[in-house]
Amino acid sequence: MTPLRPGATIGILGGGQLGRMLACAGAQLGFDMLIYSPEENSPAGRVAAGTWCAAWDNGEALAEFAEACDVVTLEFENVPVLTIDTVEAAGTPVRPGSASLKISQDRYTEKTFLNEQGITTAPFEPVDGPGDITAALATLGGKGVLKTRREGYDGKGQAWIRSAEEAETAWDRIGGAPAILEAAIAFQCEISVIVARGPDGDTRTWAPPRNLHKDGILAVSSVPSGLPKAIEDEARAKAMKLAEALDHVGVLALEFFVLQDGMLLANEFAPRVHNSGHWTPEASQTGQFEQHIRAVAGWPLGDTHRLHDAEMINLIGEAGLVSPASLGPHDTLTLYGKREARPGRKMGHITRRLGPRKD
Amino acid sequence: MTPLRPGATIGILGGGQLGRMLACAGAQLGFDMLIYSPEENSPAGRVAAGTWCAAWDNGEALAEFAEACDVVTLEFENVPVLTIDTVEAAGTPVRPGSASLKISQDRYTEKTFLNEQGITTAPFEPVDGPGDITAALATLGGKGVLKTRREGYDGKGQAWIRSAEEAETAWDRIGGAPAILEAAIAFQCEISVIVARGPDGDTRTWAPPRNLHKDGILAVSSVPSGLPKAIEDEARAKAMKLAEALDHVGVLALEFFVLQDGMLLANEFAPRVHNSGHWTPEASQTGQFEQHIRAVAGWPLGDTHRLHDAEMINLIGEAGLVSPASLGPHDTLTLYGKREARPGRKMGHITRRLGPRKD
Repeated sequence: MTPLRPGATIGILGGGQLGRMLACAGAQLGFDMLIYSPEENSPAGRVAAGTWCAAWDNGEALAEFAEACDVVTLEFENVPVLTIDTVEAAGTPVRPGSASLKISQDRYTEKTFLNEQGITTAPFEPVDGPGDITAALATLGGKGVLKTRREGYDGKGQAWIRSAEEAETAWDRIGGAPAILEAAIAFQCEISVIVARGPDGDTRTWAPPRNLHKDGILAVSSVPSGLPKAIEDEARAKAMKLAEALDHVGVLALEFFVLQDGMLLANEFAPRVHNSGHWTPEASQTGQFEQHIRAVAGWPLGDTHRLHDAEMINLIGEAGLVSPASLGPHDTLTLYGKREARPGRKMGHITRRLGPRKD
Repeated sequence: MTPLRPGATIGILGGGQLGRMLACAGAQLGFDMLIYSPEENSPAGRVAAGTWCAAWDNGEALAEFAEACDVVTLEFENVPVLTIDTVEAAGTPVRPGSASLKISQDRYTEKTFLNEQGITTAPFEPVDGPGDITAALATLGGKGVLKTRREGYDGKGQAWIRSAEEAETAWDRIGGAPAILEAAIAFQCEISVIVARGPDGDTRTWAPPRNLHKDGILAVSSVPSGLPKAIEDEARAKAMKLAEALDHVGVLALEFFVLQDGMLLANEFAPRVHNSGHWTPEASQTGQFEQHIRAVAGWPLGDTHRLHDAEMINLIGEAGLVSPASLGPHDTLTLYGKREARPGRKMGHITRRLGPRKD
């Protein structure tokens, strides 16, 4: 494809913090950024050249938005596939396309697809009703995590099952929706790989961060991960393989559990920029937001060389009302412009540079 | 003063590239950024939460803008002082205040003020009409540069005079406006100091870049400057002294000529973020745009520690139609979103990281 000319217009489906950071990165490259979001006065809309506030199924608004954009991307993996199809039908390319979305929107399809690519996951079984749980538990060794197939994020839509008696409660807890039961696994740590792929197939990864979750929400990502290079390389190779298998254009994140013996089990992927890559703008040559814009614009990808050791600390709920006096000399603060600090809500993050990269 | 709360609203007078970069930096800190600019569809307006497109003397629009903002700042030193007064009369503080502007808007006042602070400049004489030039030439050693007192930038409003015969032509060339004649000086190089000052008087400087001009327009700024530390320290001390003398709040840039023997002659200052500081976001802990926002918000200033050796290359005129394929692996591109690449127009810049800081 022909690279977008400087000054072209890029649309983003979704108006949250990821869209906000993408819009700022796109503006730095000289693009006009437009936001489409059902949310009024969205975080991303307040840094963009224009906003369409309309529902995901508003065909007229989508067609108008498509008309205004040279290319459209997304910041939210649960954009309905029909929305993507409507924009594409209006003649504007959407990157990544609906394939990456369709597969990632359903945990069963997602994990099956990963396994088909030779990317091992924890064992899992489909659960279409509470009656399926007993058999699934038996197959998976007597305990596991019940997860809704669709719409779960930040630990929502998940419940532990440690015995058959807990089946009904867990089913109710996740809202009684089609689910999977995933085997309980003992892991030493979690890592993720952020990978970018251009329309020409060029693929780049960043150093995999080690991720610490609290209450199902990412709390801290650190680079370097401290894991042997061979494990990091294997994780990077798997993420690149996934991006190719999806014919993905843009940034994608693949999460892994690292077992005690170093074996990698993929957990899930997000077909977009990712919270565990929020350290990249401050600690590597090219950040994930700029890279995503380069990819969807058909520009050559930037260098992903890591420059600093760093950690990224999420500001969740009340922590988002950060006191500027509490910032350390090596801290870079990013706040998302959200009006209300609700419990569990991601309000911002701090990237702390820990010194020049040592290896 | 009480620090602005996260999510507060900051207004910027001016809609050019400096406003655009300030607006992005403010958004990263979670602020809502509003732009006031006589220019329609301005570069800054396209990354802001709202825009007022009105003249500098539109009292009604200014009052409405002031009302919408918790604090107002500026990106352009020729904002009329009356505009600042109108915003302040509406009850909204403007930082920096009109003192920094009043002095910097007139070259004669500016250089006189610098000398009063013990900050030496090249000798200069006021020129109110072509008849003053002969006497001024005699005082200044027979040649010099005629510069309009007001509104000159990027080499505009300047003309060399090498003999008394050139007086009339030079006077016509600068448009026949009140001017100064400045003595011709032989210098080894030009440097500048970017300094930030908070409302509490805390003052920070960055490493002084060495600046290379072409056709009167900044072409390249490099750090480190290659000059002895003692000279850099003297330049930094003078910039801090100036910021204090003006009771300045925000970022300010002071330009110097460095003579063969290392003596520093101040050239001029800009009471705002400055082109020669455009490398700071990529090559130091805190960039000048974020720092300016912190200062006007009453937040503690960030660390100005330099992390990388770097050079900043301006993209002027047609060079702004940069081919993305021409970018090197250590280049960070910033484009200003200007619609037309006119000769001499600043379209963007590249910051090139040249390796980790060595000293």
